[in-house]
Amino acid sequence: MAEDKKLVEQITPMDEDFAQWYTDVVRKAELMEYSSVKGFMIFKPNGYAIWENIQKIMDDIFKENGVENVYMPMLIPESLLDKEKDHVEGFAPEVAWVTQGGLNELSERLCVRPTSETLFCDLYSNIVNSYRDLPKVYNQWCSVVRWEKTTRPFLRSSEFLWQEGHTAHATEEEAEERTIQMLNIYADFCEKYLAIPMVKGQKTDKEKFAGAKATYTIEALMHDGKALQSGTSHNFGDGFAKAFGIQYTDKNNKLQYVHQTSWGISTRLLGAIIMVHGDDSGLVLPPRIAPTQVMVVPIQQKKDGILDKASEIRDTLKAAGIRAKMDDTDKSPGYKFAEAEIRGIPLRVEIGPRDLEKGTCVIVRRDTREKTVCNISDIVSCANQVMETMQADMLQRAKNHLASHISDAHNYEEFKDAIENKPGFVRAMWCGDVACEEKIKADTTATSRCMPFEQEEIAPTCVCCGKPAKKLVFWGKAY
Amino acid sequence: MAEDKKLVEQITPMDEDFAQWYTDVVRKAELMEYSSVKGFMIFKPNGYAIWENIQKIMDDIFKENGVENVYMPMLIPESLLDKEKDHVEGFAPEVAWVTQGGLNELSERLCVRPTSETLFCDLYSNIVNSYRDLPKVYNQWCSVVRWEKTTRPFLRSSEFLWQEGHTAHATEEEAEERTIQMLNIYADFCEKYLAIPMVKGQKTDKEKFAGAKATYTIEALMHDGKALQSGTSHNFGDGFAKAFGIQYTDKNNKLQYVHQTSWGISTRLLGAIIMVHGDDSGLVLPPRIAPTQVMVVPIQQKKDGILDKASEIRDTLKAAGIRAKMDDTDKSPGYKFAEAEIRGIPLRVEIGPRDLEKGTCVIVRRDTREKTVCNISDIVSCANQVMETMQADMLQRAKNHLASHISDAHNYEEFKDAIENKPGFVRAMWCGDVACEEKIKADTTATSRCMPFEQEEIAPTCVCCGKPAKKLVFWGKAY
Repeated sequence: MAEDKKLVEQITPMDEDFAQWYTDVVRKAELMEYSSVKGFMIFKPNGYAIWENIQKIMDDIFKENGVENVYMPMLIPESLLDKEKDHVEGFAPEVAWVTQGGLNELSERLCVRPTSETLFCDLYSNIVNSYRDLPKVYNQWCSVVRWEKTTRPFLRSSEFLWQEGHTAHATEEEAEERTIQMLNIYADFCEKYLAIPMVKGQKTDKEKFAGAKATYTIEALMHDGKALQSGTSHNFGDGFAKAFGIQYTDKNNKLQYVHQTSWGISTRLLGAIIMVHGDDSGLVLPPRIAPTQVMVVPIQQKKDGILDKASEIRDTLKAAGIRAKMDDTDKSPGYKFAEAEIRGIPLRVEIGPRDLEKGTCVIVRRDTREKTVCNISDIVSCANQVMETMQADMLQRAKNHLASHISDAHNYEEFKDAIENKPGFVRAMWCGDVACEEKIKADTTATSRCMPFEQEEIAPTCVCCGKPAKKLVFWGKAY
Repeated sequence: MAEDKKLVEQITPMDEDFAQWYTDVVRKAELMEYSSVKGFMIFKPNGYAIWENIQKIMDDIFKENGVENVYMPMLIPESLLDKEKDHVEGFAPEVAWVTQGGLNELSERLCVRPTSETLFCDLYSNIVNSYRDLPKVYNQWCSVVRWEKTTRPFLRSSEFLWQEGHTAHATEEEAEERTIQMLNIYADFCEKYLAIPMVKGQKTDKEKFAGAKATYTIEALMHDGKALQSGTSHNFGDGFAKAFGIQYTDKNNKLQYVHQTSWGISTRLLGAIIMVHGDDSGLVLPPRIAPTQVMVVPIQQKKDGILDKASEIRDTLKAAGIRAKMDDTDKSPGYKFAEAEIRGIPLRVEIGPRDLEKGTCVIVRRDTREKTVCNISDIVSCANQVMETMQADMLQRAKNHLASHISDAHNYEEFKDAIENKPGFVRAMWCGDVACEEKIKADTTATSRCMPFEQEEIAPTCVCCGKPAKKLVFWGKAY
């Protein structure tokens, strides 16, 4: 037992030092590795496989919703980035510049895409001519680079993986509809597959995307009570269309500007999974997204028949579409348990000599450690049932955590107290003035996370300045 | 009919000007678009979807063969690229350099990956310690940048999409085995899914990968008789391991260097598909890889019941796992036919009033235009059968084309005549001297494509210098 204990002891308890716990988990679960370029990380197989599952599911949903995939160049000429004023101001300070190609100095420098609005606009200006060409609902899966000063695995790094959808529509209404449609797809996906409930709403002008008319967001609450912006969807109106000259001839033969949107989720979601569901033994993965759903661990595996039965169980599970593996290394069972726990594998199936005699095995849930004795002949339905329950329980726990970490503030004293002493979202009214957002941030480090779609008036005046309130806002400290 | 004819007339006949035919097809089939950065291309939905299908199938095969996916940074520090002498000499002249990050000049410039051997070596030097850590069989799907002077869509562009596998093994034998295993996987995939037969063999030292001990290749023959290198697999021996210090402790507690391989296929394969199977009406896609396998075209679609039946057919096909669409736009049937042909959609299903009466529809094969009348109730089995036959026929035609475009040359006169007048591969003996390869290239523009695995001696002396022959070589003009 000494060695297995050691494995877990390498993880700092989360309530002692949450940041260190996070770093320990991403390293011990072998999700990532630091690279030789500062701020750039390596996605190792355990980490990348989670992203692959997110991609697969999300991509199917996209296609059901009329999205077509493309691939755009990774480099953007400076003159193209410059075309939309707010956009370039937002991104130019944080991009990487290519200045030499082959043996020659470039006549115009190129930035490594931080996002690809400008490239899609350039394309649409060339291929959209008539109302018959609309809508365009394109998406790409790629990596982007933003030169960050301080980085944290998955949460903020100089390069990250994401998808970016970019659309062009004939009407304002259709663009707004698509913006909201994609936000809802994100929120539903996170709830159904990642077991993470989201607060949905609109960003304030201060927090919206560079160049957007409106930005919508899904915000998740981490174990430590901090918020994580987990996906955004932007309505650009016709701002980019005017800057890039994207026009079409409508049915009445009149020239019109298109209305555009963009929307994205990224490998940040891995950070959300870790910080919402993890515990002191490591990662806890929702079964629906886990790359390995079941680890079969033979006990006293040198005894006759044990390994055979263990691999039979694995094969039966695999044949039923369950992502199962068997750990037949020469490590001790305790060590294997600890390893599977650190990696967050939802179910462990133990099979030893006594089980074999009785024709049973033991299923252990990663989240609660609850054990279920199961007839080997029922292993598939039994494993599926435990996974379904676990998935549902994880979501319910996350919902309870969210609900119990929202507090209301009716005045600035209450607000400061809540931000300081009650980790989580603070709901408070706001006058709509950016000065109040800035003061709140300076005083408390909290930012406006979103103006929730479901508005109510919990006080008549702005929590900060006392002027008449316009909006209910979710505030919080954020990653 | 005027408009449909026009659509096809926009494609230059292939035997008139093959290069122009190629450009016309990639544009008219809407596979790609040029971007604002010279040499960089945009993969449009029709083109990207073919690559997605290649990825899906190949990735499954990889995973069955023990490959794990990762993601490495896109930027490589100059000092890391410099570590292996041959490698840096091969790639440094054609990379793009990032010299500024955010608002600061970088202290060390970073290149956009042209390939990632150095990054994987750096990783392996950190995570491989014991024989227990081996083998490492990692792969990534990504884009790479190589600053090309002259570019052609899919065949040669400054950025392309690919997968790059990088492995580390305990023994020389295991590394060689993996190198050949992956080459065979590539060749089998191309034959089975793309209907493209490959010539397999080893590259000469002149043509091998920068830093490799041995490079193996699959070479395909295009319609015009030129060769296309379609995938490569490299055995590095312990060269990179020594340059990067990748050592492990073996079972006897002795330090050993690992043996490494790398292997890749790229979006070049799209060029191969186009140039092996295409015809004067456009693209012809093998059914197994086609994003849309069946286009249902209603005839006189305004007549009662036609559209209903057409969409019923489409839905039935989709439910059976066939990738089917229906074209219910207001274009004429002739125009729809031409469009589906240009895009290379394997089957067209026509359904008009007379068919409806008889409960039948007409299946038209893209490659031969052969028509099959089929009971609507049998549409699934009928479509599957026609597709299977078409896939097999396409492979057979490509095999015949390859076989009929290989000629033997026993002396230099025959060789020059063959290269000049018989498009295709020329088999000829070679002494092993790079000087002969260089002379041949200077005299004929042909290069050594590979030394085939199946060697025979068709002449005793080198076709170029007359010295004793060492190897049978496939020579040819190449893309």
